[in-house]
Amino acid sequence: MEFTFLGTSAGTPTRARNVTALALAPSGPRPWYLVDCGEGTQHQLLRAHYSVMQLRAIFITHIHGDHTFGLPGLLTSASMLGRTEPLDLIAPVQTHRFVTSTLENSDSSLSYPVNFIDSEAADFRWQDEHFAVTNVALSHRVPCRAYVFTEQNLERQLRQDRLTEDGIEPGPSWGELQKGRDVTLADGRLLRSDDYTEIPRVARRLIVAGDNDDPTLLAEASAGSHALIHEATYTQDVSERVGPWPQHSSAEQVARFAQQAQLPNLVLTHFSSRYQSGPGGAPHINQLAAEALRHYRGELFLARDFDSYRLEKDLTLRCLTTDNP
Amino acid sequence: MEFTFLGTSAGTPTRARNVTALALAPSGPRPWYLVDCGEGTQHQLLRAHYSVMQLRAIFITHIHGDHTFGLPGLLTSASMLGRTEPLDLIAPVQTHRFVTSTLENSDSSLSYPVNFIDSEAADFRWQDEHFAVTNVALSHRVPCRAYVFTEQNLERQLRQDRLTEDGIEPGPSWGELQKGRDVTLADGRLLRSDDYTEIPRVARRLIVAGDNDDPTLLAEASAGSHALIHEATYTQDVSERVGPWPQHSSAEQVARFAQQAQLPNLVLTHFSSRYQSGPGGAPHINQLAAEALRHYRGELFLARDFDSYRLEKDLTLRCLTTDNP
Repeated sequence: MEFTFLGTSAGTPTRARNVTALALAPSGPRPWYLVDCGEGTQHQLLRAHYSVMQLRAIFITHIHGDHTFGLPGLLTSASMLGRTEPLDLIAPVQTHRFVTSTLENSDSSLSYPVNFIDSEAADFRWQDEHFAVTNVALSHRVPCRAYVFTEQNLERQLRQDRLTEDGIEPGPSWGELQKGRDVTLADGRLLRSDDYTEIPRVARRLIVAGDNDDPTLLAEASAGSHALIHEATYTQDVSERVGPWPQHSSAEQVARFAQQAQLPNLVLTHFSSRYQSGPGGAPHINQLAAEALRHYRGELFLARDFDSYRLEKDLTLRCLTTDNP
Repeated sequence: MEFTFLGTSAGTPTRARNVTALALAPSGPRPWYLVDCGEGTQHQLLRAHYSVMQLRAIFITHIHGDHTFGLPGLLTSASMLGRTEPLDLIAPVQTHRFVTSTLENSDSSLSYPVNFIDSEAADFRWQDEHFAVTNVALSHRVPCRAYVFTEQNLERQLRQDRLTEDGIEPGPSWGELQKGRDVTLADGRLLRSDDYTEIPRVARRLIVAGDNDDPTLLAEASAGSHALIHEATYTQDVSERVGPWPQHSSAEQVARFAQQAQLPNLVLTHFSSRYQSGPGGAPHINQLAAEALRHYRGELFLARDFDSYRLEKDLTLRCLTTDNP
């Protein structure tokens, strides 16, 4: 399970950070999934190893422009490349309207179908062969969701002891059982895959949250999750100075929650453009890390554009970008 | 009169070229004017010396996404920066609708008024103290315009011979006359600025054209213009292979027209992403220059992102980017 940040800035882009987008892949670049699509996401993709031709679904957390304004360009560029595969667009109804009216008002049409799926539906659930996806309502100025990605179809291991015990000879039926399929033998016996195989590890689960001023809303989803990607727009003192209106979280707030929820891995993102990485008068981005580390003892990461991560089968999270401290 | 290319690619961005946008300034970065606003224009501005705070007006040539999808992000970012100055948006009505519905569907509002002005109006004319702007209908898949920018309020020179002849003593009245203002003397005489000053040079005039498959539509506007910025999406052979549908010009077509119209300066832009500048298998961008040079004997330039040009008072056009051959 790998993901790459295509944008990590809140509200407006900076020279080093684009507005929000995240590429997620079960393994390798095809298929892959996009969570949020700020302006310039298609430009970021030109520098990443994900192609819009292999994109299976887009999940939008909420309607704000820094999470959605890249959609029309990305969709029409895929069309100019000749995409024919259908694409799922999981988003609030207003984002569907934004896309539809933008295509209309720009004389654009798409060479492939877009399936609009309402992310705010009460019974929202999406899945394919790689991921089962649910979502959780967050607290922001507009309805906003966190998406919970749970790995599907984990590789099974044959329980050879039991197969031998029941006198089932090695052969094609073993292969079928390992693929999770039930088998009827020539003698009429029905073998259930679940009886003769086991899944030797836990399904990996990742939460990708949208804008949110109350991380505790993720308490239930966090139980059994192995990594949380959450906004930390400000440090606590700036957050208090700015006041409650923006409805964002501070690094401290998220860190306290992740500690309490015993989340083993936390990646902070969606930083206010006031924080910079270089030398100079602007507050340094590391202030956010320092603040979070005072409240969280798990593995902490600060997202940067184009950093890639892998959530390993042993549930450790590894940043694949070598220069990330 | 200076301009900087913020995007020079047709349809989709490449790693080296963004989709169309051009910054134009009478002198220095304030105020300035934007012609077209493809996705990522606000990102390009982070690397140029123009700020959205000093932007006076946006001119959109036509409704296609590669010329308009950057509008919502640029407008909302200016709002987040606290802009209060009104902004003129000169564009087709559908682009006004695109902007309005996008703001609505993304819970966005602007901290400043946008004046929507219909670029397709029969009597279109816009002006401020720096530029008088008219437009010309082009030929494309949708209504499309070229904008003609004519310098306004040229500096006047006093005709000292005539002032002396008429016994007008040096003093504040000379200054007023030079500013173009008529003056009434203490003795009751009315002095008309036009009688005692002259404008010692021609007003500079620049045409910035949108997508167009018939450059000859610019014949009338080209008389008295000093530079033309025009698309050259393909070479002639590719243009013939692609067929008439895209309704773009070849380098040859534009060059032939510019030669016939005796335009002294021609800048080609809006290149198909098939043309590249680096080594490799892709057709080289210089093919477009080579083709144009076979038919045009004026000053020819191929636009690149971030290249800046100055149309001097002596009507020469100079690329200010030192590494441009």
